[in-house]
Amino acid sequence: MRKSIGVGLLGLGTVGTGVANIIQTPEGRNPLVGGIKLVRVAVRDLKRPRGASISPDLLTNDPNKVVDDPSVDVVVEVMGGIEPALSLILRAIAKGKSVVTANKAVIARHGEEIAAAAKTSGVYVLIEAAVGGGIPIIEPLKQSLGSNRIQKVSGIINGTTNYILSRIAKEGAAYKDVLKEAQELGYAESDPEADVEGLDAADKIAILSGLAFGGPINRESIPTQGITSLNNRDVDYANKLGYGVKLLAVAERLDKENSIDPYLPLAVWVQPTLVPKEHPLAGVNGVNNAILVEGDPIGEVMFFGPGAGSGPTASAVVADILNIAGIRTIGSKNNCLDPLLEASSWRKCKLVEPQKIIQKHYLRLKTEDSPGVIGQIGSVFGEYGVSIQSIVQFDATEAGAEIVVITHEVEQGKIITSLKSIKTLEEVKGLSSHMVCL
Amino acid sequence: MRKSIGVGLLGLGTVGTGVANIIQTPEGRNPLVGGIKLVRVAVRDLKRPRGASISPDLLTNDPNKVVDDPSVDVVVEVMGGIEPALSLILRAIAKGKSVVTANKAVIARHGEEIAAAAKTSGVYVLIEAAVGGGIPIIEPLKQSLGSNRIQKVSGIINGTTNYILSRIAKEGAAYKDVLKEAQELGYAESDPEADVEGLDAADKIAILSGLAFGGPINRESIPTQGITSLNNRDVDYANKLGYGVKLLAVAERLDKENSIDPYLPLAVWVQPTLVPKEHPLAGVNGVNNAILVEGDPIGEVMFFGPGAGSGPTASAVVADILNIAGIRTIGSKNNCLDPLLEASSWRKCKLVEPQKIIQKHYLRLKTEDSPGVIGQIGSVFGEYGVSIQSIVQFDATEAGAEIVVITHEVEQGKIITSLKSIKTLEEVKGLSSHMVCL
Repeated sequence: MRKSIGVGLLGLGTVGTGVANIIQTPEGRNPLVGGIKLVRVAVRDLKRPRGASISPDLLTNDPNKVVDDPSVDVVVEVMGGIEPALSLILRAIAKGKSVVTANKAVIARHGEEIAAAAKTSGVYVLIEAAVGGGIPIIEPLKQSLGSNRIQKVSGIINGTTNYILSRIAKEGAAYKDVLKEAQELGYAESDPEADVEGLDAADKIAILSGLAFGGPINRESIPTQGITSLNNRDVDYANKLGYGVKLLAVAERLDKENSIDPYLPLAVWVQPTLVPKEHPLAGVNGVNNAILVEGDPIGEVMFFGPGAGSGPTASAVVADILNIAGIRTIGSKNNCLDPLLEASSWRKCKLVEPQKIIQKHYLRLKTEDSPGVIGQIGSVFGEYGVSIQSIVQFDATEAGAEIVVITHEVEQGKIITSLKSIKTLEEVKGLSSHMVCL
Repeated sequence: MRKSIGVGLLGLGTVGTGVANIIQTPEGRNPLVGGIKLVRVAVRDLKRPRGASISPDLLTNDPNKVVDDPSVDVVVEVMGGIEPALSLILRAIAKGKSVVTANKAVIARHGEEIAAAAKTSGVYVLIEAAVGGGIPIIEPLKQSLGSNRIQKVSGIINGTTNYILSRIAKEGAAYKDVLKEAQELGYAESDPEADVEGLDAADKIAILSGLAFGGPINRESIPTQGITSLNNRDVDYANKLGYGVKLLAVAERLDKENSIDPYLPLAVWVQPTLVPKEHPLAGVNGVNNAILVEGDPIGEVMFFGPGAGSGPTASAVVADILNIAGIRTIGSKNNCLDPLLEASSWRKCKLVEPQKIIQKHYLRLKTEDSPGVIGQIGSVFGEYGVSIQSIVQFDATEAGAEIVVITHEVEQGKIITSLKSIKTLEEVKGLSSHMVCL
């Protein structure tokens, strides 16, 4: 008979309740689930009614009591936010306890500190639930794809914005109305900033790229643009040109050849992006998430599924507990950790300056409806070395016309310089919108 | 410094060459790849030129020499076929060596025997490359989704047939012509039987369902139908009704509630299947594979990518070697195996009789073009408890008409009985085709 593993839960909200529900109904799941015992649960309000039936003896409103409880082997942090989550995670590690967390904000910002502490203490910090809800993506990056040189990770990793964009694309509804409905349905928070401004996606791509490329990423340097200023007109034009609009988070290495630079240069960004309709990410709708990984020699693999929610996220949390339970079965000769599961970093990465990022650009310009204007715009781009994929005039009226330019791949810096020059053209009244394309 | 891990390769064909290429170029991959050493390679013909540069000293045409070599820690079997692969795998296990194999035929037919031997010897037998090429699917079923009760696994898991079906759907080309081209392009074997008759897909769904449901599956009992008798007319009608045609392999548990039956009843089948165009599997084209897993509480997750080929399959093989290398780092107190990685079975499964399988059916009937015939057919189905989703008449000419029926979900037995009765109707000239629907 295997020894049971004691779990202490920090937080009993949506995810915590899901975790408790799985642990309390082990029948029909992997038999190791039966060996997980919920021994202590920290909640903010002891009196609030709960979606899981937890014996009141287990509840405490002092999270330190969970971390310090000697019968707790693994601390599961599902309270969210930076503090006190960070301090509690570090405290658990210092006490020699492995940690499972769904907290992308903490990991994206303090992952290095946490990993160093975990290494010192010889414990695991597992984070499958931090990105992509239930979708297995952390484990594949750490283990199943480990033999690859990863070139690019692109993902739809925020369910709220994908829900909003899917509704806008389908119904032509206004952003504000859809956001309000999403809030009513529980798909968006009452304070939606982290989602709609792309901050949550930036946290997650920081985590994914750290694992994919083997070195920590400076979260604060990721250029991030959300969907709050997205115009329905662009969704419409994109559609006419064969694209859907998605909020993508992308991380790409810029040295495709082996280089001797000790720092791996990466372009990492979060931005509303035109995705060709035949692209695998284009069909990912609603609150679903999907992550596309490109590597050598695997080519392209995609992971798709529910990116949030109680059940899916709890599935990932419990999978991490199972991993710890599984590896505990082996015992350890010398307190060594499995280097794959531990996922220590093994390379230094640096983010390139935004102007060095190579992308295809989508630009919507307001112009006069004059016959020469397309030629003039084309010439300026040509002058600055920007090659154009398509340039199309929409909606010509007396008030003027709209010209949509899609470029080939080019450094952002060249686009910025070209635009400066284009804005000085007499026929050009302004840049109405600027996105990127896959 | 970690000890290096000695790998012996059985076979240096497409996959073996890919494995050697990864191991020999560790730069930029997970650092554990650098610890893998190729120490011995068995080939059939010592003189054949190779796609990987292997020192001739390593080559032997006696595979036993690879298995028996004391410097070989892990035996990688990528020769394919049942024998001598099976004997070599068992011999390696008996010598206390872990095995990594891409051999779906051996695992689907002899998995139980191999697993039992591995347990006795305290070694791992890892098979990520056996299903879905490079797509991580074995590991997710064993670990990342372990907290779920899996309800259904459905997959496009044969690249050759998916390539052929994609071409037929896109161009209306004839099966025979596309098969010939696929053979010329190397997407189909010169003897295509295992692929086009669905046998390869049946091997793979046997493996996937064994892992998803926790108990071994009797490979020989899986009802299997390939694509050789597929008629372009059905692809055309399916398209008009909003479906694509895919060769699906499906495994589904039939007791959605908890039951006390010690055997978990499963419906497992391989069959050309109408997939609604908005379904995630419908967009999987060419040689790609995709596997959709439905579980509680995760909901639906899908894994998509290249289902075959040297690089992708080798990526999966080396990932398995990494797993073994990673876990060796820990050491083991008492020769215990990680139960998740070991993936021992923990439940008994049984395949239900084909007539108990519940599916939606697609039936194309040749009939007279008479006004009452749809009503008559509908009545017979009603009599036997078969509920109809749609019944549509196509191509009415003097020679008669074609009627396509799509049913709701119903036991196969009821369809068979209804069809017997329908065939006796005077206006019905015969059943032209019979497929299933998602």
